[in-house]
Amino acid sequence: MYINAITSYLPEQVITNAYFEELNGLTDEWIIERTGIRERRKASSSENTHTMAIEAAQKIKDILPYDISEVDLIVAATYTPHDNIFTLGHAIQHALNVSEIPVVTISAACSSLLNAIEIVQGYFALNKAAKALVVVSEHNTAYNNEDDTKAGHLWGDGAAVLSLSKEKAGVQNWLIKDLITGGAGNVGKASEGVTLKPLHRGLIMPFGKDVFINACTYMPKVSKQVMERNGVTVEDIAYVIPHQANLRITKNVANTLGVPDEKMISNIQYLGNTGCAGCAIALDENKTKFVAGDKIIVTVFGGGYSYGAMLVEV
Amino acid sequence: MYINAITSYLPEQVITNAYFEELNGLTDEWIIERTGIRERRKASSSENTHTMAIEAAQKIKDILPYDISEVDLIVAATYTPHDNIFTLGHAIQHALNVSEIPVVTISAACSSLLNAIEIVQGYFALNKAAKALVVVSEHNTAYNNEDDTKAGHLWGDGAAVLSLSKEKAGVQNWLIKDLITGGAGNVGKASEGVTLKPLHRGLIMPFGKDVFINACTYMPKVSKQVMERNGVTVEDIAYVIPHQANLRITKNVANTLGVPDEKMISNIQYLGNTGCAGCAIALDENKTKFVAGDKIIVTVFGGGYSYGAMLVEV
Repeated sequence: MYINAITSYLPEQVITNAYFEELNGLTDEWIIERTGIRERRKASSSENTHTMAIEAAQKIKDILPYDISEVDLIVAATYTPHDNIFTLGHAIQHALNVSEIPVVTISAACSSLLNAIEIVQGYFALNKAAKALVVVSEHNTAYNNEDDTKAGHLWGDGAAVLSLSKEKAGVQNWLIKDLITGGAGNVGKASEGVTLKPLHRGLIMPFGKDVFINACTYMPKVSKQVMERNGVTVEDIAYVIPHQANLRITKNVANTLGVPDEKMISNIQYLGNTGCAGCAIALDENKTKFVAGDKIIVTVFGGGYSYGAMLVEV
Repeated sequence: MYINAITSYLPEQVITNAYFEELNGLTDEWIIERTGIRERRKASSSENTHTMAIEAAQKIKDILPYDISEVDLIVAATYTPHDNIFTLGHAIQHALNVSEIPVVTISAACSSLLNAIEIVQGYFALNKAAKALVVVSEHNTAYNNEDDTKAGHLWGDGAAVLSLSKEKAGVQNWLIKDLITGGAGNVGKASEGVTLKPLHRGLIMPFGKDVFINACTYMPKVSKQVMERNGVTVEDIAYVIPHQANLRITKNVANTLGVPDEKMISNIQYLGNTGCAGCAIALDENKTKFVAGDKIIVTVFGGGYSYGAMLVEV
């Protein structure tokens, strides 16, 4: 299974920490010290989970090594849905006008990128698809309560699209060597650590410490698992892209894995936590930096709890 | 792939058509003539998408032919979520205390039962799982606007759980011979025919006629596809379970397929439209009626649009 192309979309509006200092008294210094976040993007009133993903999807049409009509599977992911019935996946199918293919939208919270890729892997194994789009989009600011001094300053909006093919296609053929996903819904404060109940609007994180501890446990653990079962050591890894939740979590993961800071890729400083889109946006942002043979670990952790790791060879 | 066990849960409270006559003037006769619905169930104030599914999941523990700890995959489905981060799948994992297995929650609107089963099929093909739970649960009344005279009277609440195994297990081994799913997000009024935008709360169906026409087109079409590619004719089919949306759609599907009314299974008369749970509840309700060798078609259609058909041999 190969990644052929990646595109992303970020809304224009930048919200700096100064906005929160005025809103609820959290200073730039305080926020940076605890999270690493300096600014984040916010969708405009005419944007939503669908429109952001469609922007990224329209861009991928131009760089796909095959015609968009050959796409035979769409797996979309979001925990901040615009519509649960005309779902994100169906909105992409509508925008791209691709007929009669399997389409589904998923959530495993911030981990969904890897769950979506694993679902594609299953369709490829069944020979029910060979060219898939994975779509990740989060409209966190639509569900966030900015006044919440525990977590209101963490979230940003953004979207990305990846095209995956079963066989090599075109120029860019990053090999997905392996991936592991897992739920940890029965661990710690999984049921209440971070939640988004749509009828209560709120995206809240009342137990940030429990989330922090489990993120710092599961991301290194599953990264090691995926490396070990592929005979790869941490020295073989060119870059690690962890879920973009908190720069302190990223540093903790780096320490546990024994990966130097310069191999850790982050966009949280200027995007905040963009949910399941964060790692995909980071892949897009850094794609020209990667060179053939680079081995990359993408590792995720999310509410629920959920986790995963993927080993990619450029 | 086999279905080993099915359980379901329905909330106690029954809402008859008389309730809507008092609320918005729609008479029992008017509702029955247009939809076939006489009553539907409504979750209590202490129930939600998670609690209903957990009730069904607790029941399945007692009839599984293996220990619950052997479950190695949970795929849950709902378009009426209680929590998008601690998702339905994670809530089931939490309730059953099953550790470190893939867990994901999906939506393809009312069609999700078959999308969920197809995702399981993929994990089985990858040898990443062998014993899965598929969980379907809808809390329609939480998102519905009862005052809406177009669609407020259609919806009911309920949940079901199916256990699926890659190899035969225990006594009940209904063979899933084949299934097809599809999105039709680019067809007709897919983007607006029926929608649920959580931030606007509303589950609405402003273009019921377009939904009706496409449901009556896609369910027979995909049912014929799955029969044809398995060398099965309509005379070989013991029962057809269509998505439980409207009794007039069911009759139209029966006519188009040439299936007599007595082979069509319905629960919409007393449950209303229970979304992606409807066909699974019907499978549970009728399981003692089925005899070895019975071939059953389950066919679905949902907003988005989305569709699918599955051929099961008891």
